[in-house]
Amino acid sequence: MSKHLVRDLDQLQKDILSLAGLVEQSLSKAIRALKERDIVLAREVVQGDTLIDAEENHITEECLKVLALHQPVAIDLRRITSVLMICTDLERMGDLAEEIAERAMSLCRPPFFPVPEGVQRMADLASTMVRQSLDSFVSLDVKLAMRVVRMDDEVDRYNRELIQELVKVMNDSPANIEHGLSVFSAIRHIERIADHATNIAEDVIYLVEGEIVRHRVEDFGRK
Amino acid sequence: MSKHLVRDLDQLQKDILSLAGLVEQSLSKAIRALKERDIVLAREVVQGDTLIDAEENHITEECLKVLALHQPVAIDLRRITSVLMICTDLERMGDLAEEIAERAMSLCRPPFFPVPEGVQRMADLASTMVRQSLDSFVSLDVKLAMRVVRMDDEVDRYNRELIQELVKVMNDSPANIEHGLSVFSAIRHIERIADHATNIAEDVIYLVEGEIVRHRVEDFGRK
Repeated sequence: MSKHLVRDLDQLQKDILSLAGLVEQSLSKAIRALKERDIVLAREVVQGDTLIDAEENHITEECLKVLALHQPVAIDLRRITSVLMICTDLERMGDLAEEIAERAMSLCRPPFFPVPEGVQRMADLASTMVRQSLDSFVSLDVKLAMRVVRMDDEVDRYNRELIQELVKVMNDSPANIEHGLSVFSAIRHIERIADHATNIAEDVIYLVEGEIVRHRVEDFGRK
Repeated sequence: MSKHLVRDLDQLQKDILSLAGLVEQSLSKAIRALKERDIVLAREVVQGDTLIDAEENHITEECLKVLALHQPVAIDLRRITSVLMICTDLERMGDLAEEIAERAMSLCRPPFFPVPEGVQRMADLASTMVRQSLDSFVSLDVKLAMRVVRMDDEVDRYNRELIQELVKVMNDSPANIEHGLSVFSAIRHIERIADHATNIAEDVIYLVEGEIVRHRVEDFGRK
């Protein structure tokens, strides 16, 4: 691999790590806005998404430049197409964090609706998955990538439990239905963020093993 | 462009068109299962997703082969990376159709919950967007792609109206809440299918105009 290609690949990796950092920050703020009914913070998340979008555009352009300039083959080619896929996933996660922030805004209106405790834990787990999926990409660590894929089961468990909890709250009082739907949406968005992190981890396994594991995760010990 | 590259590109285009056909079929069946509480049809959709996943894997592998073999540049390079992006979008749409089918399964349990009329119209519109976004890719028709992007506003309108309708039904009777949430999820899934079609249309505009329009659709007349 040429020195220039090594340098360009390094730069691409730094770029997606910094994009992932923005996404994590955005998610963390959106959840805080949801829990604390903080409309200012929610607006910050919505506005911040423009930066995430711009970064995704930038990285996509850079990937195409690197592909055209170096015409890489084999593992290097796969690595760059992985960056393309990963930055699409990160951008969509950013959109999801923005949608959570929009749900937070609607929760600011009365009546008061208590956000279940588990939402924060579920979001923390999703955030860990985002970080570790990127780490597994940078270090080409298949074991870590597999761990991320398995963590998604735990997120699904939170998802189910929280939805049951919500149905109960909504059942208790029809006045809670609209806000209940907002929290329901937010929980589904967190679940999808975790799905995107899982996609990234599966891309890493594909990159290292050279075979597409997506859609057949059960092969490596997932329930 | 070499004859071989022309042939391979043609094949890739045929492949994603046939993948899009599978996705459309899957969506149409899932909606019918939802409306008619047809558990057999719903199961068919869930099982059919395996084929969609396998097709996506196949097309991804083919794209990488074409990239490695022909090392295309400029528009050809963008075209192949577009195929990569588009087939990811199609696969996710397939997953969403599967999720709608799962919601259909839970609606088969009592009590009877009437699916609002508008759901079919919303799904038809999303399906048209899928078909036309692919058509715009094959014919590199920017005008058609822009039309697809604008159709997404109408889908969003359906989304809002249907959710209001649902809140009303759920308000009227707490026994409806669980099924109401299932229909709510299905509507959100249709909306996301339309979003993926919009992504494809935006990719087409990018491909032809050479500039990333994603995230700045307002520039071409979207409200």
